[in-house]
Amino acid sequence: MHTVDPPPHSDLPQLAADMSGRLRARRPRVHCLTNAVAQNFTANVLLAAGCVPSMTISSEEIGHFVGGANALLVNLGTFDQERREATGIAVATASQKNIPWVLDPVFVDRAPQRAAFARELVGRGPILVRLNAAEFAALAERPASPQAIAEYALAHKSVVAVSGETDLVSDGKRVAAIANGHPLMARVTAMGCAGSALIAACLSVESDPWRATAAGLLLFGVAGELAARGANGPASFAVAFIDALSTLEAGAVIQLAQVT
Amino acid sequence: MHTVDPPPHSDLPQLAADMSGRLRARRPRVHCLTNAVAQNFTANVLLAAGCVPSMTISSEEIGHFVGGANALLVNLGTFDQERREATGIAVATASQKNIPWVLDPVFVDRAPQRAAFARELVGRGPILVRLNAAEFAALAERPASPQAIAEYALAHKSVVAVSGETDLVSDGKRVAAIANGHPLMARVTAMGCAGSALIAACLSVESDPWRATAAGLLLFGVAGELAARGANGPASFAVAFIDALSTLEAGAVIQLAQVT
Amino acid sequence: MHTVDPPPHSDLPQLAADMSGRLRARRPRVHCLTNAVAQNFTANVLLAAGCVPSMTISSEEIGHFVGGANALLVNLGTFDQERREATGIAVATASQKNIPWVLDPVFVDRAPQRAAFARELVGRGPILVRLNAAEFAALAERPASPQAIAEYALAHKSVVAVSGETDLVSDGKRVAAIANGHPLMARVTAMGCAGSALIAACLSVESDPWRATAAGLLLFGVAGELAARGANGPASFAVAFIDALSTLEAGAVIQLAQVT
Repeated sequence: MHTVDPPPHSDLPQLAADMSGRLRARRPRVHCLTNAVAQNFTANVLLAAGCVPSMTISSEEIGHFVGGANALLVNLGTFDQERREATGIAVATASQKNIPWVLDPVFVDRAPQRAAFARELVGRGPILVRLNAAEFAALAERPASPQAIAEYALAHKSVVAVSGETDLVSDGKRVAAIANGHPLMARVTAMGCAGSALIAACLSVESDPWRATAAGLLLFGVAGELAARGANGPASFAVAFIDALSTLEAGAVIQLAQVT
Repeated sequence: MHTVDPPPHSDLPQLAADMSGRLRARRPRVHCLTNAVAQNFTANVLLAAGCVPSMTISSEEIGHFVGGANALLVNLGTFDQERREATGIAVATASQKNIPWVLDPVFVDRAPQRAAFARELVGRGPILVRLNAAEFAALAERPASPQAIAEYALAHKSVVAVSGETDLVSDGKRVAAIANGHPLMARVTAMGCAGSALIAACLSVESDPWRATAAGLLLFGVAGELAARGANGPASFAVAFIDALSTLEAGAVIQLAQVT
Repeated sequence: MHTVDPPPHSDLPQLAADMSGRLRARRPRVHCLTNAVAQNFTANVLLAAGCVPSMTISSEEIGHFVGGANALLVNLGTFDQERREATGIAVATASQKNIPWVLDPVFVDRAPQRAAFARELVGRGPILVRLNAAEFAALAERPASPQAIAEYALAHKSVVAVSGETDLVSDGKRVAAIANGHPLMARVTAMGCAGSALIAACLSVESDPWRATAAGLLLFGVAGELAARGANGPASFAVAFIDALSTLEAGAVIQLAQVT
């Protein structure tokens, strides 16, 4: 008898659909150490998906917040003294308590200090590094390609997700390419930052971090496609995007997901 | 002749309807020492209701801003060194000039340092402490019940408003229960923070702080019910909520208000 | 033969229409040192118009961000120690690299420290000072009138734009009055701040700063008029405003522009 292998990663759309239900059922707490531009939108994205966000950047209390959270996001979008101090405490707490944490090294290609700080953080064991191609090139000192991403992931024992028209996700062994999303997503500030926060939430309800990341990216991209249908521009799109996340149905996720 | 007592607090819906007009006519200045997540939404809520928001957190100038304001909100949502210093100056200025100030001790149940700071602030005489049941329990070290709230209000000579499906407001002698609002309000970040800012504005145009607080909660809850009618999710709800506040009519407030 | 002079500034509507295309084609990078209330809305306004915003306020890296930008906005809306330090570096970098920078001295009428700091900044050569009449009066120590504005512009070798129902723009020699806009613009927080950021972008794609400023104000006002058409209140207006900016057509700009 001749059998046909299923296409690679054909189980990811179902996981993405399940993930949406898991987030609503378990309501994970996600602490976001993120930039001032992104805080409000990120909190609303997490709330729409059923999660509970917290946002303090104060060194004195961030340990308590992270210690009580199910996932942590560290986003370098506004890199200042206060956030840098808080990052050290937040990451130490997450590591000690085995709380998954995601590094989103925003604009690491714009200033060398930021790149140096990001490299130091990669060394502290984020479960996921999520960035765009220009940021990957600055961090890894080589252009983003499936091979470069997989090698970086392997070398740093992290999942790496590089966003673009097609998102690439690798843990060094597996690579998935996700083609969902919409051009309007690049016209809304903090869209990527909020995506990283949602993936952090996914990492708290799925034990395989590569699969959790791919599923989170699928959810995010599908919500973007649904939102674009009735949008008149980037602001009505952003409103529709959050609404779509809050009402996302398994059927739509499975039908629209594009992953290879 | 037999007379029937009016139901308790039957005059509050009318006050709430009046309040909306008073805010538009007097345009009170409300200084908000609030968290970074809430600043933009809070400012837009105040503007929609006819008020003039200011938001600086700088110690050097907050005294001037509070001194020229009609009400002050102190929200602990992002508790950092800079905001803590500014709080001392803001509260001292408000006390000295008899400017009503509201304490919103966000997430006081999450970190002991925050609870300690909030207790210190309660001792400095806010006209209103506004919080949810978990925050009340952390602050008062007992569960929120009508009796506990009334006793806490009496002991601290402040009005206390505990938010939830039904909001409870007490000044130690009177208790009102307000059943307005909509579940989508809990899905929009900073909704509660913005509500506290609106109540601060109400306190500047009504001399009985218990009545002002109840009226502000009624206004806020009614706007939420009106906004939910056409909303597709939390983001279109948030847009409709601000629009509803800006166009709220006395008739709708009186018709929808649910207070006992 | 008798010829008729064209009305003054009759070429500005066409420039405004062109400007919209230039921004989309050249995608200028605009660094915004702005207040926490305005950051998100400002970034979304710039993205809608085709620009690339950055927002860091960290002294350590702002030099790199400004050095790589095409324009700089300095907005004093939340005036704190960190932003003040960053301002010095940002302005020095802009001056050294001939990057146009705009000063928006928000609320300079509310606190004397802020006015003093703003005066110091005016002395450092912003290409444009953009403010409202109350702020002008505080800064210039005389009421805003066409003559006062022109004299201030001449004395400080900057373009001065004073916003109001009619915006006035002068470089000391020329004065334009722009009557576009809509009352709902004053009901959305950070609308003015975002306008200053958009004008900063215009200054990077048009070498005559007075004309660039007038064109930016026209674009902004026309987008406001278009957005108001279907708005139910300030929040749906703000959404429609960003959508309108992203789809603004030359024909509408030329048809609606009101400049004398």
